[in-house]
Amino acid sequence: MKIVIIGAVAGGTSAAAKARRNDENAEIKIFDMDYDISYSGCGLPYYIGEEIQDREDLTPRNAEFFKKKYNVDVFRRHEVLNINTEDKALTVKNLDTNDVFTESYDKLVIATGAKSIVPNIPGAENSNVFYLRNVTQADKIKEYIITHKPKSAVIVGTGFIGLEMTENLKNLGIEITLVERLNQVTPGLDSDMAVHVEKYLKSKDINMVLGDSVVELKGEPLVNQVVLQSGKVINSDFVIMSIGVKPNVELAKEAGIELGANGSIKVDTKMMTNIKDVYACGDCAESYSVITKKPLYRPLGSTANKMGRIAGDQVSGGNLEFRGILGTGIFKLFDMTVAQTGLTEREALNEGFETVICHNIKPDKPEYYHGKEMVIKAVADKNTGKLLGVQIVGYTGVDKRVDVFVTAITFGAKVEDLFHLDLAYAPPFSTTKDPVIYTGMILDNAINRGRELITPGELNKLIEKGNDITVIDARVNKQYEEAHVDTAINIPHGQIRKKAEELDKEKVVVTYCNKGVTGNAAQNILINQGFKKVYNISGGHKNYKAQSK
Amino acid sequence: MKIVIIGAVAGGTSAAAKARRNDENAEIKIFDMDYDISYSGCGLPYYIGEEIQDREDLTPRNAEFFKKKYNVDVFRRHEVLNINTEDKALTVKNLDTNDVFTESYDKLVIATGAKSIVPNIPGAENSNVFYLRNVTQADKIKEYIITHKPKSAVIVGTGFIGLEMTENLKNLGIEITLVERLNQVTPGLDSDMAVHVEKYLKSKDINMVLGDSVVELKGEPLVNQVVLQSGKVINSDFVIMSIGVKPNVELAKEAGIELGANGSIKVDTKMMTNIKDVYACGDCAESYSVITKKPLYRPLGSTANKMGRIAGDQVSGGNLEFRGILGTGIFKLFDMTVAQTGLTEREALNEGFETVICHNIKPDKPEYYHGKEMVIKAVADKNTGKLLGVQIVGYTGVDKRVDVFVTAITFGAKVEDLFHLDLAYAPPFSTTKDPVIYTGMILDNAINRGRELITPGELNKLIEKGNDITVIDARVNKQYEEAHVDTAINIPHGQIRKKAEELDKEKVVVTYCNKGVTGNAAQNILINQGFKKVYNISGGHKNYKAQSK
Repeated sequence: MKIVIIGAVAGGTSAAAKARRNDENAEIKIFDMDYDISYSGCGLPYYIGEEIQDREDLTPRNAEFFKKKYNVDVFRRHEVLNINTEDKALTVKNLDTNDVFTESYDKLVIATGAKSIVPNIPGAENSNVFYLRNVTQADKIKEYIITHKPKSAVIVGTGFIGLEMTENLKNLGIEITLVERLNQVTPGLDSDMAVHVEKYLKSKDINMVLGDSVVELKGEPLVNQVVLQSGKVINSDFVIMSIGVKPNVELAKEAGIELGANGSIKVDTKMMTNIKDVYACGDCAESYSVITKKPLYRPLGSTANKMGRIAGDQVSGGNLEFRGILGTGIFKLFDMTVAQTGLTEREALNEGFETVICHNIKPDKPEYYHGKEMVIKAVADKNTGKLLGVQIVGYTGVDKRVDVFVTAITFGAKVEDLFHLDLAYAPPFSTTKDPVIYTGMILDNAINRGRELITPGELNKLIEKGNDITVIDARVNKQYEEAHVDTAINIPHGQIRKKAEELDKEKVVVTYCNKGVTGNAAQNILINQGFKKVYNISGGHKNYKAQSK
Repeated sequence: MKIVIIGAVAGGTSAAAKARRNDENAEIKIFDMDYDISYSGCGLPYYIGEEIQDREDLTPRNAEFFKKKYNVDVFRRHEVLNINTEDKALTVKNLDTNDVFTESYDKLVIATGAKSIVPNIPGAENSNVFYLRNVTQADKIKEYIITHKPKSAVIVGTGFIGLEMTENLKNLGIEITLVERLNQVTPGLDSDMAVHVEKYLKSKDINMVLGDSVVELKGEPLVNQVVLQSGKVINSDFVIMSIGVKPNVELAKEAGIELGANGSIKVDTKMMTNIKDVYACGDCAESYSVITKKPLYRPLGSTANKMGRIAGDQVSGGNLEFRGILGTGIFKLFDMTVAQTGLTEREALNEGFETVICHNIKPDKPEYYHGKEMVIKAVADKNTGKLLGVQIVGYTGVDKRVDVFVTAITFGAKVEDLFHLDLAYAPPFSTTKDPVIYTGMILDNAINRGRELITPGELNKLIEKGNDITVIDARVNKQYEEAHVDTAINIPHGQIRKKAEELDKEKVVVTYCNKGVTGNAAQNILINQGFKKVYNISGGHKNYKAQSK
């Protein structure tokens, strides 16, 4: 048995290691074009930001390691030129010697990864326009910073890498301007959650240009001006392009291997392609959604590891199968943490779900124990009561909550299940009712107990349409005076029991407080008094206000 | 509808609030003997340790709050003397005026909580022997510390409260001696996990006396000597007794209400007692295990809140039902975090499960990102492959992992399910494969893929019995020379492929490395080479060494 793997980063090396664990006798070879192998792509921004001091921390495993530990031969700087699936053979070129040779295989694993998208604009390939994807490129950025001592940078794209680079370059004292094509940062989030990230970026003195695109990178030999669609010109000492990645599939495509989502290699749950004995895994391979079961392309190191292990198991006689992903993502932005899993509201609506949305604003720990507020936006399916996805923006404890949600959604949790979780409670770690539990309670009340929620966006639409609704601000008068929903009347919570008698019970009523809890209490009182249709604003005035940029 | 609740801390106030949310018109009254209501019992150690500065942070909600927000009348300093379940009436005494009156109810909720166990030994009720259970007692401890400036304290009992008090008193500069009846600290943990806590306590200069009991507290008017069963005498400026709690059930018992586990009030999933219209919730009520479905008494604020909400829902027309607990617990000990959920190995064996045990030693984050090692002991059911429980000792990220395990176990996760979780990965939060995922992989390999584990305890038993086994230390020679399992031979991992030929394939072989990963690699090689029975030491030499106190 001869197993050949193309690519020696996360997917390829995981496949090799797993195959060896299963089969002591197989011959296992890996070819990789690059010099560095098995590196942590996700660590690159922190290497540039000097959070990771030692380059070897990024590439702890070299070819020798794989030989010694797994009896796997890794050939670096070897480019596979061609896959002949009929003869089961590869044409391989040694990039150092230019030797070209043929290599046969019994089982082939393609783990060619992904590459940065390079826009088709003037200057895109200039030497101070960087595309962070591997250690070599990270080295170049580090070297540029050391040599040129740049004072400013434009970062194009506000996905995870763009914002991680924002933090790391800012920490080096470089002034940052973010350019984003969309009208919001972090395209993966719903816009009503992205506003929190934008506000925080402003507080960190990060310049942002939203809803604009780069059309030209000017300057010779080095780019020093970024020209936008709007005509705006930004002076900049260098540019980081982080507008996304695309799978490396040229080799597979030429070999007649079928492609799928985003042009990635189509695979089944065994990671097998349409061609027998040819497998694919990692950033070049297609994934699928645990929720919708539809193809999904979300390249990430943790997924590449899973896929690699499965491919390695399959080519060595195992039966491990891929179960899909939720599209979980997380990133740190200075002291902020942003995380998401499952479907956003936008995605859920596109998939045809009838959604129920809540914005739950809660501290991760008691305030007396330095708790910091997070906003959890949860999306549920009104018809099944199942949780579809969450987005969380906060400071501490965000990673915990998203992982609990990941686990719950994976097991098909309904919103009412969350309340019953016996989560670990002590003041240094959580509130008595964890934010996850509150999220479940709010959604359960909305879906199963007639305590309906309305998002700020939905409320504004109702008002704009001229619907005749009563909006009640249930906060104390002082808070109402400071700022309130335009059409709202002020009935502090303590007075609602009495004053409700003066209101029209047939009209639609919307209640709100600061974050949602007292608004819900007011809603309860009105419903119990016979009001026909009462909504509470999801996330209260705090969320409403955040939406009015 | 008149709802009367006895007790105004976690369970009682939760019940009242939920009942009001459901029913605007019910009359709701709460009686409580104490002056302070609705306080955070779990915050008390941190109030004493001055982590919580403001007493009001512990008791944020007073009677006025409940009247204003929920239209609930809270009567403090009112003792219920008697429950007459036939007439549906209570006899109540106002402790300030000594007035006694009768109060009728339609629905009654008993939420009388629990009290500290006071041992039957001389001096147990002396004024500087403290039982931390409510704010008044916390005040007394604080006052004692301020007035007497004690230099030393003996803490009896090493459960959560005992160890939380250890941290908080030590932080005030007080020398601590812990006295524990058992031969280990933290009785809730298996002894092979408690060793890590003991080692850490030593590093923090905490004195420990294990396997000994207090027989007398000497000194007048203040205790200054603690006399132990062994004859040992410890000089001490005061004593904290934290040897457990028992439910306050005298009132219920006299009223003919049936009792259950640990003498707590027996309730069904609706929190109803054996008597119609009488409910119980919180620390006085019985819970049950999600796993075994058997009664369980684990009083905790988070559970009291859940039970209270359910009782409140049921007495006001709702249908919320209790789903049991996993017995999740967590505590902070200086920089250490100790958490557990589900069954320990000891409990699982007592329940008759055929267990598979793993000790997974992993950093919570990449080491280059300040990751700190945690030990996860997981207990699985060999026959169903289901996860039964975990115990985790570590520094950062422990609370996250336990909550993910809680969620997985609640949904009936099998060990092989954990690998597939799409947990959030970025270097500041996790390793590419999260410790939870590794735990699942190790257990899956052990249960479903013939990669069996052996615990240090089991290995020692085999050796003591004189079984003829080959023990292979797969670490480099230098590590072997420093310390190794007594009967082990040293075959570094890189040489196992060759040297295996010289070994007897029919004999039982035990492999190990430092933490388990390379030991598993060695195990794979041997199994693939035809060895009949190969175990890998769970947690490797690091775990083995930790067990030899």
